[in-house]
Amino acid sequence: MKVFQYVNIVTCDQDFHVYLDGILAVKESQIVYVGQENQEILKQADQIIDYQGAWIIPGLVNCHTHSAMTGLRGIRDDSNLHEWLEDYIWPAEAEFTPEMTTKAVKEALTEMLQSGTTTFNDMYNPNGVDIAEIYEAVKVSKMRCYFSPTLFSSDVESTAETIARTRAIIETIKGYQDPDFKVMVAPHSPYSCSRDLLEASLELAKEENIPLHIHVAETQEESGIILKRYGKRPLAFLDELGYLDHKAIFAHGVELNEAEITRLADSQVAIAHNPISNLKLASGIAPVVQLQQAGVAVGIATDSVASNNNLDMFEEGRTAALLQKMKNGDASQFPIETALKALTIEGAKVLGMADEIGSLEVGKQADFLVIQPQGKIHLQPQENMLSHLVYAVKSSDVNDVYIAGEQVVKDGQVLTVNL
Amino acid sequence: MKVFQYVNIVTCDQDFHVYLDGILAVKESQIVYVGQENQEILKQADQIIDYQGAWIIPGLVNCHTHSAMTGLRGIRDDSNLHEWLEDYIWPAEAEFTPEMTTKAVKEALTEMLQSGTTTFNDMYNPNGVDIAEIYEAVKVSKMRCYFSPTLFSSDVESTAETIARTRAIIETIKGYQDPDFKVMVAPHSPYSCSRDLLEASLELAKEENIPLHIHVAETQEESGIILKRYGKRPLAFLDELGYLDHKAIFAHGVELNEAEITRLADSQVAIAHNPISNLKLASGIAPVVQLQQAGVAVGIATDSVASNNNLDMFEEGRTAALLQKMKNGDASQFPIETALKALTIEGAKVLGMADEIGSLEVGKQADFLVIQPQGKIHLQPQENMLSHLVYAVKSSDVNDVYIAGEQVVKDGQVLTVNL
Repeated sequence: MKVFQYVNIVTCDQDFHVYLDGILAVKESQIVYVGQENQEILKQADQIIDYQGAWIIPGLVNCHTHSAMTGLRGIRDDSNLHEWLEDYIWPAEAEFTPEMTTKAVKEALTEMLQSGTTTFNDMYNPNGVDIAEIYEAVKVSKMRCYFSPTLFSSDVESTAETIARTRAIIETIKGYQDPDFKVMVAPHSPYSCSRDLLEASLELAKEENIPLHIHVAETQEESGIILKRYGKRPLAFLDELGYLDHKAIFAHGVELNEAEITRLADSQVAIAHNPISNLKLASGIAPVVQLQQAGVAVGIATDSVASNNNLDMFEEGRTAALLQKMKNGDASQFPIETALKALTIEGAKVLGMADEIGSLEVGKQADFLVIQPQGKIHLQPQENMLSHLVYAVKSSDVNDVYIAGEQVVKDGQVLTVNL
Repeated sequence: MKVFQYVNIVTCDQDFHVYLDGILAVKESQIVYVGQENQEILKQADQIIDYQGAWIIPGLVNCHTHSAMTGLRGIRDDSNLHEWLEDYIWPAEAEFTPEMTTKAVKEALTEMLQSGTTTFNDMYNPNGVDIAEIYEAVKVSKMRCYFSPTLFSSDVESTAETIARTRAIIETIKGYQDPDFKVMVAPHSPYSCSRDLLEASLELAKEENIPLHIHVAETQEESGIILKRYGKRPLAFLDELGYLDHKAIFAHGVELNEAEITRLADSQVAIAHNPISNLKLASGIAPVVQLQQAGVAVGIATDSVASNNNLDMFEEGRTAALLQKMKNGDASQFPIETALKALTIEGAKVLGMADEIGSLEVGKQADFLVIQPQGKIHLQPQENMLSHLVYAVKSSDVNDVYIAGEQVVKDGQVLTVNL
């Protein structure tokens, strides 16, 4: 048993316990004690790590990204979503090779680990991806990953062919029998998939008993396209297809009205909120406070670096908090506790992993990050830890990261990815 | 003459020249050459510094902050402006001592320098400030500073007393005869100063021939207060007093309508835009694109760490760019070039210092920062320097900083402030 002592722990558990000058005990991959100093626990320790007043919070959960696009950072800025996708992103992705995407994924793993992210939900354009290589890179990194091969409608492949290809990927991933490398079915969006492909995607997800992962209600333009094509707004259209009755992650959810939020509350859908990408592509601000009040789970996400342009979850969580205050005209909205939970336990709920990760509690996996505030001028005065964790901290402040009790980042250096 | 070679230089000059693999030559405090490699210049060098592909941009200009409040980081989050000011900030400031404020200013100088800021416009609550000590700290740090003692109406001091006290501070600062330590007259805001004090402040600024610095049009609530008190909106009220015909910096400018923007364009007023503070206090988003289109100079600013909660100008500039895209529903608004200029030359224009600083041009002061992208995973691929400088860079990426040709930060360590 390893015990981390002289630590200030933000558990992000149900009651949001905070332990000042506490200890965290880890046996193999699990947390066996979290709380104030306890001599019994210290006596049982095989190893005691003195963190000298450092701050510990759960590993961050990035609910929606595209790690294979990391090589596209800076490809095209200052464009709206549809122009950006059609004229820049999709043509670039068509040129992807397995060498490129594996390299990009390794870079993304490095950037995510360095900034305290331990679990991510990844969506992949089908082209140029060697799933075995990516699995190997993720496995070696120790990160927990949901991998979603993306389905598009195109002139070069029929719905049946797309489904068959996706089914093969799912079988490959299931074959790994790795509980930390999971799979979802990811039709790209209501506008880029035919009704036929959307229906077949849902069928596949049901057959395989895995979640759906799809971009929904990202822009007004999307609503216009779907309204014109099907006579309904995106949410109603997907509801008609049955998407709201299957476990699903809808990325974005910017363009949602009150009735749609009410409908989501009574569905199996969770939202991955991408505040920076939604600003950068001029999409808007998701109604996160209203979604949360209605009872919809909302996690934080970076989207890809092509529309962000980094994988910094601290910046993302801070931006989410700041935007909700402004949007609602009320600075008390999305307070510190909400922001810290959105980065951790709420993200775990969105991914259906809240029994294992997302908070520091006995029995859960020991996924956490360590920030040493000493000597960092922007984290003074140190007493206001919770405030600083949301509003002042930078991803470069993350000193150490642990996943399942194993150290994966030491003094800002990633130990588990070979670039 | 010192020459910096193998550098990629973003000049932020009128034509936004960018020199890849260029050189920058500095003689004493001034830039004597900027451009592509030049054998003549290299021959004349006393010292050649090889920066191995680093990025160089002008030092950042923070147009509105309150460095003495740096000890209040995290004092009260998640509150709207007026509650935050009246219940937390003003009572805390009333307890300030010179020891506290000098320490806070030194911490702010350190944080600003580390993150690439070389010039700042500072506003001070009158209590607990030893101007000689602060002058000494700023002088030693080498930073360029506009110091604005704040004027408030209160029960304990008459207008004449407040003006006399402020005049004494101005005389002290003028006595330093230091062109890098300037002074403005800073009535706090239309709502916290009587008409009498606002009029007397303008008279003082005219007499002394120095600019005004004031919080204006920050919130809807302010507009309501001024409308009720004077029957006019804040801008019209200040216009009536003559504020728009004297060189002035209006901090915030969130609540400005079309007619007010038109009026500002024909005034001597510049705007200090504080995007993060305006979000955090739920004030709103300033109409920056409209102000710029009308021809109003707009600089970027952090406000104090009590409402931010850091002094990171890169994060501030990125937030400004992201918000303007979303607010205008057009991702092409506030593009990269605009963002980099807003952080540098536009800030210099706001402060009336554009002849000296804000761009890297022959004859200007050699104020610049150096970022080495090598080995920084979130700055890859390196080719997209301009994109990364706005959308991906973190303040912790600043390696070195120079002011007037003198190195003040080396490998992230501040050389000129003793905390």
